[in-house]
Amino acid sequence: MLSVDLNCDMGESFGAWTMGRDAELMDYVSSVNIACGFHAGDASVIRKTVETAIAKNVAVGAHPSFPDLQGFGRREMKMSATEIFDIVLYQVAALKGVCEAFGAKLHHVKPHGALYNCAAKDEATAKAIAEAVKAIDAKLLFYGLANSFLISEAEKLNLKTASEVFADRTYQADGTLTPRTQPDALIETAEKSVAQVLQMIKTQKVTATNSETIQICAETVCIHGDGAHALEFAKTIRQALIDNQIKIQSF
Amino acid sequence: MLSVDLNCDMGESFGAWTMGRDAELMDYVSSVNIACGFHAGDASVIRKTVETAIAKNVAVGAHPSFPDLQGFGRREMKMSATEIFDIVLYQVAALKGVCEAFGAKLHHVKPHGALYNCAAKDEATAKAIAEAVKAIDAKLLFYGLANSFLISEAEKLNLKTASEVFADRTYQADGTLTPRTQPDALIETAEKSVAQVLQMIKTQKVTATNSETIQICAETVCIHGDGAHALEFAKTIRQALIDNQIKIQSF
Amino acid sequence: MLSVDLNCDMGESFGAWTMGRDAELMDYVSSVNIACGFHAGDASVIRKTVETAIAKNVAVGAHPSFPDLQGFGRREMKMSATEIFDIVLYQVAALKGVCEAFGAKLHHVKPHGALYNCAAKDEATAKAIAEAVKAIDAKLLFYGLANSFLISEAEKLNLKTASEVFADRTYQADGTLTPRTQPDALIETAEKSVAQVLQMIKTQKVTATNSETIQICAETVCIHGDGAHALEFAKTIRQALIDNQIKIQSF
Amino acid sequence: MLSVDLNCDMGESFGAWTMGRDAELMDYVSSVNIACGFHAGDASVIRKTVETAIAKNVAVGAHPSFPDLQGFGRREMKMSATEIFDIVLYQVAALKGVCEAFGAKLHHVKPHGALYNCAAKDEATAKAIAEAVKAIDAKLLFYGLANSFLISEAEKLNLKTASEVFADRTYQADGTLTPRTQPDALIETAEKSVAQVLQMIKTQKVTATNSETIQICAETVCIHGDGAHALEFAKTIRQALIDNQIKIQSF
Repeated sequence: MLSVDLNCDMGESFGAWTMGRDAELMDYVSSVNIACGFHAGDASVIRKTVETAIAKNVAVGAHPSFPDLQGFGRREMKMSATEIFDIVLYQVAALKGVCEAFGAKLHHVKPHGALYNCAAKDEATAKAIAEAVKAIDAKLLFYGLANSFLISEAEKLNLKTASEVFADRTYQADGTLTPRTQPDALIETAEKSVAQVLQMIKTQKVTATNSETIQICAETVCIHGDGAHALEFAKTIRQALIDNQIKIQSF
Repeated sequence: MLSVDLNCDMGESFGAWTMGRDAELMDYVSSVNIACGFHAGDASVIRKTVETAIAKNVAVGAHPSFPDLQGFGRREMKMSATEIFDIVLYQVAALKGVCEAFGAKLHHVKPHGALYNCAAKDEATAKAIAEAVKAIDAKLLFYGLANSFLISEAEKLNLKTASEVFADRTYQADGTLTPRTQPDALIETAEKSVAQVLQMIKTQKVTATNSETIQICAETVCIHGDGAHALEFAKTIRQALIDNQIKIQSF
Repeated sequence: MLSVDLNCDMGESFGAWTMGRDAELMDYVSSVNIACGFHAGDASVIRKTVETAIAKNVAVGAHPSFPDLQGFGRREMKMSATEIFDIVLYQVAALKGVCEAFGAKLHHVKPHGALYNCAAKDEATAKAIAEAVKAIDAKLLFYGLANSFLISEAEKLNLKTASEVFADRTYQADGTLTPRTQPDALIETAEKSVAQVLQMIKTQKVTATNSETIQICAETVCIHGDGAHALEFAKTIRQALIDNQIKIQSF
Repeated sequence: MLSVDLNCDMGESFGAWTMGRDAELMDYVSSVNIACGFHAGDASVIRKTVETAIAKNVAVGAHPSFPDLQGFGRREMKMSATEIFDIVLYQVAALKGVCEAFGAKLHHVKPHGALYNCAAKDEATAKAIAEAVKAIDAKLLFYGLANSFLISEAEKLNLKTASEVFADRTYQADGTLTPRTQPDALIETAEKSVAQVLQMIKTQKVTATNSETIQICAETVCIHGDGAHALEFAKTIRQALIDNQIKIQSF
């Protein structure tokens, strides 16, 4: 029987500001990536999100970011490899400790936003992140963009990895995501998203924007938690996986 | 043979701003309290300070604070017990994880600045801090002001405690520190400081400002790391302890 | 003909987080208090809110706060009078400059949250705020809680003041707001809110929780912009004022 | 008689952290660039620095930055032109208002650190900064790297500009500064620095690292305020200018 992990970014509220319907979404995914305080998620949000995730029995991951609250970690910052190592170490350490305080084990790490995108394309950034994860706990699972430096650098350090694919993004013939600046970057309908996800899981291939069919390693599928239709979409994709006898579970 | 712990606050630099002569001071103390990022200490400062402390073989503690970088954690903030639990949990978790990444164990927790002072006088605040420490690791040592709620609340939770005394502060007949707003709050000469420290360690008593001699539990002595004469004073007090056959060691 | 100002706190979004339906609410009020970046409102939110307010032709005020983004400025911080002067000066200066860059004049200043509440009860805090406002522009209007030090200290400095009353809060016999910790602090129905507002504007009196009728100076009425029913309530109160021939206008 | 402006970055302390010997340095320069709170300078530091500058009779400028306190504004951040416009508008507005509160006029704007460097090379960034300055006050003087987009974009908007040269940096044959990553980027001796400054002011030319002599517009000379020898160097360069009958004055 085929199986796949469904992951979702969570804990993205901050202080008086609420974002996402975390508790509800946790009913549809198998793992969550929790913001660590640098782009979202204050200490109270983190603690509550960890408690909810444990109660809902989903695997808990850390979602470290560039230090940019106002930009939500979506703006690239030119930081040295050492600085990147240090901020990832701090954030993952904090999340791990909060998990353990409530009796859970930290399951994985997935970089957030601009840090994820930079590291996917830049070897040194990917390496610095992977080294920080390994320093914390060499058994942590490392989520990263399929076919990117995130995966290859983590593998070089003997970390276990999970190649991530996206339900609502299109792919180029070279295996990279179509940049958001291009008109066909996003898959607009739930139907097409579901079709792409099933194709990726069943065949480990995806049809690129130029109609070529390319290899893709689809071990964990990212579901977006924000937006008006996030919950509806999560239900739809979950049901489609069940209908296709694909088991939804974390590693 | 008598023994005592000498502790010092460290890791109080931030970004481009340097504070304290940490590496040098570590030659004279037996334990350090490292800022966790909320009043001082960014992720790089924390990592470097932890590495230095390990190399210098001093016991490493977490020094959590109110979230107030501009005020250096010295301004009281009205936070709920839950909020205090959450910020202490997060900060101690981060420090603990960074220590473990470099092969060391976190040794103790000592609240910083206004959080320390509030908790010394307020049962609920002290309890919230102690609960967070216990949630992280029930074996962590808890440093707090001798005779205060910090100690009594931690003891109620069965945490091991270290009662802290100050080398350069005078005491009231009720065992509390003379408030800094009063003219005789500070001990101005190294000679008198040393005399008070020796009295406290040897007799577990201190002479209050009204000349009464009162009981005080002196398990760890705080040495201040800032100020022009910090290093000189640390040397002086260390030598005085050695000359009096008092062993300087952490618990 | 009677007239009154209706004011609302706005510009309380931050980065990726949205709060309030500012543009819609501006159709119902005559003045707005815009967050200055210390409890909410980044530079982009401030600029957009100022532009919208100018387009909607409402009077623009600055809404300075304690520096506490995570606590939304709702937690009291122990700051010196000089520190309070400095943070109010900075925030009001920023708002004033942004207004002028778009061709508008800053109309008033109203302290936010815990800063407002502290200053209402503490003479030194109120004085420090009023001095900062006066230093920026002695012609700025100063909004403060009716019957409080906010008004009396501003008047001592010859600032023009607007005494603020609340539509959804009850009053004590001594003229203060019933603390939120008490069960009868909030007026729960729109009907009762409207009745209290009309009573205050028409008679400059209000019925306290102990049924006594007391004097109150009602020059500007605060409408809350958050919460599910904010927009509905703003419409209701505006219509009630119009129906009672009370003109809604800023000073 | 020749004249030139000597400028220095100031107000770079933050909270408990002190940087620079501002008051002393103000005796040697004719204009200062004051940090606005985004990379350094809290509200109290800003107010004190403005007061000192007024007392010392030096021209006051705003020194806006990327929002990166931990990185001291030295790390490039990928922000949109609108975001850059907004953060410059906010920071310059704040500084301008604080100046006016103490009876002074804001004299100029000079971008800081990574924002300065990005804008020197990127037309859109330079334009966004210049537009923000113009929106605040079209009469503000704009300091920027000689020969760069900072100057050309400001001129397109009809802002008055001051082309900045550096006393301690070498130049390439194309008029740009030698990147700090190259071994010959810095001029290490005071003697050579003084010689270069005198050459630039007297001849409006500079000898590049390849020995070519190129045109350079030297209207304001930047003196660095940090480092152990900053004060000594400021004295030396000031004396050299006086000895060469070059008047030191702001525009």
